[in-house]
Amino acid sequence: MSAPSDRLTRALSLLDSLEPGAPERVQDNLDAFHPDTAELVLGYAFADVLGRDGIDLKTREMMTIAMLAAMGTAQGQLEFHMRAAMNTGVSREEIVEIVLQVSVYAGVPACMNAITAAKKAFEAAGKA
Amino acid sequence: MSAPSDRLTRALSLLDSLEPGAPERVQDNLDAFHPDTAELVLGYAFADVLGRDGIDLKTREMMTIAMLAAMGTAQGQLEFHMRAAMNTGVSREEIVEIVLQVSVYAGVPACMNAITAAKKAFEAAGKA
Amino acid sequence: MSAPSDRLTRALSLLDSLEPGAPERVQDNLDAFHPDTAELVLGYAFADVLGRDGIDLKTREMMTIAMLAAMGTAQGQLEFHMRAAMNTGVSREEIVEIVLQVSVYAGVPACMNAITAAKKAFEAAGKA
Amino acid sequence: MSAPSDRLTRALSLLDSLEPGAPERVQDNLDAFHPDTAELVLGYAFADVLGRDGIDLKTREMMTIAMLAAMGTAQGQLEFHMRAAMNTGVSREEIVEIVLQVSVYAGVPACMNAITAAKKAFEAAGKA
Amino acid sequence: MSAPSDRLTRALSLLDSLEPGAPERVQDNLDAFHPDTAELVLGYAFADVLGRDGIDLKTREMMTIAMLAAMGTAQGQLEFHMRAAMNTGVSREEIVEIVLQVSVYAGVPACMNAITAAKKAFEAAGKA
Amino acid sequence: MSAPSDRLTRALSLLDSLEPGAPERVQDNLDAFHPDTAELVLGYAFADVLGRDGIDLKTREMMTIAMLAAMGTAQGQLEFHMRAAMNTGVSREEIVEIVLQVSVYAGVPACMNAITAAKKAFEAAGKA
Repeated sequence: MSAPSDRLTRALSLLDSLEPGAPERVQDNLDAFHPDTAELVLGYAFADVLGRDGIDLKTREMMTIAMLAAMGTAQGQLEFHMRAAMNTGVSREEIVEIVLQVSVYAGVPACMNAITAAKKAFEAAGKA
Repeated sequence: MSAPSDRLTRALSLLDSLEPGAPERVQDNLDAFHPDTAELVLGYAFADVLGRDGIDLKTREMMTIAMLAAMGTAQGQLEFHMRAAMNTGVSREEIVEIVLQVSVYAGVPACMNAITAAKKAFEAAGKA
Repeated sequence: MSAPSDRLTRALSLLDSLEPGAPERVQDNLDAFHPDTAELVLGYAFADVLGRDGIDLKTREMMTIAMLAAMGTAQGQLEFHMRAAMNTGVSREEIVEIVLQVSVYAGVPACMNAITAAKKAFEAAGKA
Repeated sequence: MSAPSDRLTRALSLLDSLEPGAPERVQDNLDAFHPDTAELVLGYAFADVLGRDGIDLKTREMMTIAMLAAMGTAQGQLEFHMRAAMNTGVSREEIVEIVLQVSVYAGVPACMNAITAAKKAFEAAGKA
Repeated sequence: MSAPSDRLTRALSLLDSLEPGAPERVQDNLDAFHPDTAELVLGYAFADVLGRDGIDLKTREMMTIAMLAAMGTAQGQLEFHMRAAMNTGVSREEIVEIVLQVSVYAGVPACMNAITAAKKAFEAAGKA
Repeated sequence: MSAPSDRLTRALSLLDSLEPGAPERVQDNLDAFHPDTAELVLGYAFADVLGRDGIDLKTREMMTIAMLAAMGTAQGQLEFHMRAAMNTGVSREEIVEIVLQVSVYAGVPACMNAITAAKKAFEAAGKA
């Protein structure tokens, strides 16, 4: 494996601030699929977009939780970002408010799925 | 028409802070459908949920924009909340960042639709 | 053009009960795309599935409205089925209830889009 | 814990008619998330909307199944409402028809997921 | 059980070319739900539509994978069609490209779910 | 405006092969939103992903059409890619087949919306 690009390095650094230890796990998962994936997908998501200035990472995670819960198609990633949100300073009270707001824009089933994800994140945080 | 409930009054007050003048227009629209709608739907959305403490209205609007853009099924309401977001203090730079973040979680077509909505909101704000 | 199959004839007959005059308009639209489309798509939808016994057409239209409103991706077809629902005996009061129920399962924006469609159907029915 | 509001009491009563014993389980789940959730979410869904007159509960459950199956984002809740539908008088034959109708409006994969949920509900009903 | 119709026979034959052995398993699953389902759903999907000329089966499977991954509501069926795609001649390299393209049109979470499905299909193919 | 990066140049070149003249129009639209958008979004979509080897552009456009039609949230972009597909060698017969296949995986309303888009593309091609 060649040295990671500067772009990938920045992406993995942001991912590490979302969940310490995640970069190695996520990169191994993507490398086992295809060696270009980490550079392409993480590079775009975390270096090109989420690493931009203009909105702080905590607020970005609040929006990510809201979007994933509203879309309802990525429960595992919603759980990850619930934990990541807490790691960037989102409080439990704020997560409760986000989840309730989801019920307004995406309906009660989306809210219920988000409650399930949030409870797992709260439990994981309680153990840490 | 009887006097609006305290709950509806609070809902309409929040709606007015999203866009001055919107309450009358929205309530007329809903009353023409069925007289219970404003109390039920606006009451739930704006008095019961969005009017809660815990997250300020500006951040709530940022999440609403992100959700509506990611879902991609309510372009007119996305345009409304783009304007509402600016009325609650979201800057153009922040809207740009939200729209780019949408591309990561919901794809480029959702981002492009959000750009269309944002440009209309920017233009409306320029005229105001 | 050859004579329509028995399956297509049954499909068009059901479509005519949804909205008198619709079969000719819909078939012309589909024929202009490809001559197999009416047989395939209308045959499946209206002869094979919706024409089955077990649930009456009125209740089927109530479910169709609910689904289209919840999915939020076919506003024109939602408007058609709002009218069709009324033609099969769904009352305005029942449409109001369906639309409010959509807000629970798919959120307020989906409900608002359904209100727009319902108001058009109510207006069309008023003119008829 | 203070006494439940009249609104929550009505919501839980309707939920009990959907599945005997569900209210305690659901409320415990929601209370463990945040004590306001049951009042807000169940109050809106079951007391404010689904408990309204105008459409009987059996027909409402038929529409709920259709919507959840068409949206495809809440398989667990679809299973619950398959059971609830049967508890409010929806027959197995009617569930079959709903599931087939879903294939028309939301496609075969949504229909297949609904078949999986329906078979679980049929099995649970067979054991009861 | 009566003899399968010619239409169902053609549908099951196409299904067998997607995954040897699948027809019996799928038909048993559908028959246990309702005896009309296989004829209706498989007949429509595989005999009426996918068995048509004009696009070869390999390219059809590439589009099916892309659609299911983009919609994000049928992970089990996405896994099936990942294997089916490989059985109709889609290479691992091509699956990688499809999955990356999904990230553009449906976002990174949809792409990540597709990677999970693809890795399972690659592993199953490695064991075969 | 500084000179476009090599990445953006490659993206715009691919976009020009989708529809001659599109690059200038699209870039103007994106620049009017924010000067970073073209580089970020078009760079990712067209240079990083769609410009990769492994699948020819014609087949990629077939998948893009299928995805956009199945998702149902970007009708304008579906129309663009219907035209682009024809510009990369997709025949009208193939577009018909794609649209019919969409009905299987995403339902008849998605298919009907795709028919509308396809007919506009056919008409535009007839005028060219």
